[in-house]
Amino acid sequence: MKYSRKLSDTIHTLAFICLGEKEHLTSARIAESVKTNPAYIRQLMSALKNAGIITNTQGRAKACITRPPEQITLLDIYRAVEGEKPLLHLDIDTNPECGVGIHVQLAIGDFYREIQDAAEQKMAAITLQDIIDRYHAKLENVYNTNQIKNEKEGNSCETEEKNRTSR
Amino acid sequence: MKYSRKLSDTIHTLAFICLGEKEHLTSARIAESVKTNPAYIRQLMSALKNAGIITNTQGRAKACITRPPEQITLLDIYRAVEGEKPLLHLDIDTNPECGVGIHVQLAIGDFYREIQDAAEQKMAAITLQDIIDRYHAKLENVYNTNQIKNEKEGNSCETEEKNRTSR
Repeated sequence: MKYSRKLSDTIHTLAFICLGEKEHLTSARIAESVKTNPAYIRQLMSALKNAGIITNTQGRAKACITRPPEQITLLDIYRAVEGEKPLLHLDIDTNPECGVGIHVQLAIGDFYREIQDAAEQKMAAITLQDIIDRYHAKLENVYNTNQIKNEKEGNSCETEEKNRTSR
Repeated sequence: MKYSRKLSDTIHTLAFICLGEKEHLTSARIAESVKTNPAYIRQLMSALKNAGIITNTQGRAKACITRPPEQITLLDIYRAVEGEKPLLHLDIDTNPECGVGIHVQLAIGDFYREIQDAAEQKMAAITLQDIIDRYHAKLENVYNTNQIKNEKEGNSCETEEKNRTSR
């Protein structure tokens, strides 16, 4: 079973656009980062353009977001690329001659809607800026961890050196 | 892109078990209602058995739920057949040489977890009994609509009859 990674790849693309403001980004460059083909990135960018999230880019993504990242929610991006597609899928292809089948699926559908609403409410509260901030925090964390590691390694060498000289 | 309908089909199976208490249900009979093959239903039932939701059935599903339907939540069923599989999928296969890629995906992952938590919280609040109750409400609704329709048609015939006799 293949899962849709469209939402993740589209957020990736938007983050790339926001983070690379000083560069002339092309769909080819973004595709390189996502490890996919430029045509797929252009397809995602076309969906973002249709949803009014980015402007017409003609292959260049530089500074083309139509509003600040704190005004673009995960739900906006989800709607742009997944439309009204739900997270949970009914099996509407049940046996029409079985009275239980279709009505059970309709009943399930009511509750799936509640689950979808809860998820979408959360999506509407998360912005592209939140993701960019978290990205920076993660990078900083990696930097600090590396620095601590280097310092520790430095210390342990020093300790080793001390041990050696005290022998 | 094919979507997983496992959860829907498993709820369908459980509802069938609860609704058909008086019958000797087989996986073949459930498969007929879901419009699938018995092996797939047995696979779902095996997952339900491993999760302790149904007892060993050996092809018969009659009265094999281990606890009342109001004590079986949608989250229990989701965990049984989907495990820890999330609703939204990261693209972890990004370019390892691109510094942005993996950290953007990790940042997205944090927020996907929040969305998953919101959805799971809702799933934990919905029981199999809720779905069965809604199923009965839907059936009753269909029955009432048909009755009103029949009465209306009866009335209209009566009116027509009256019109005819008054001519």
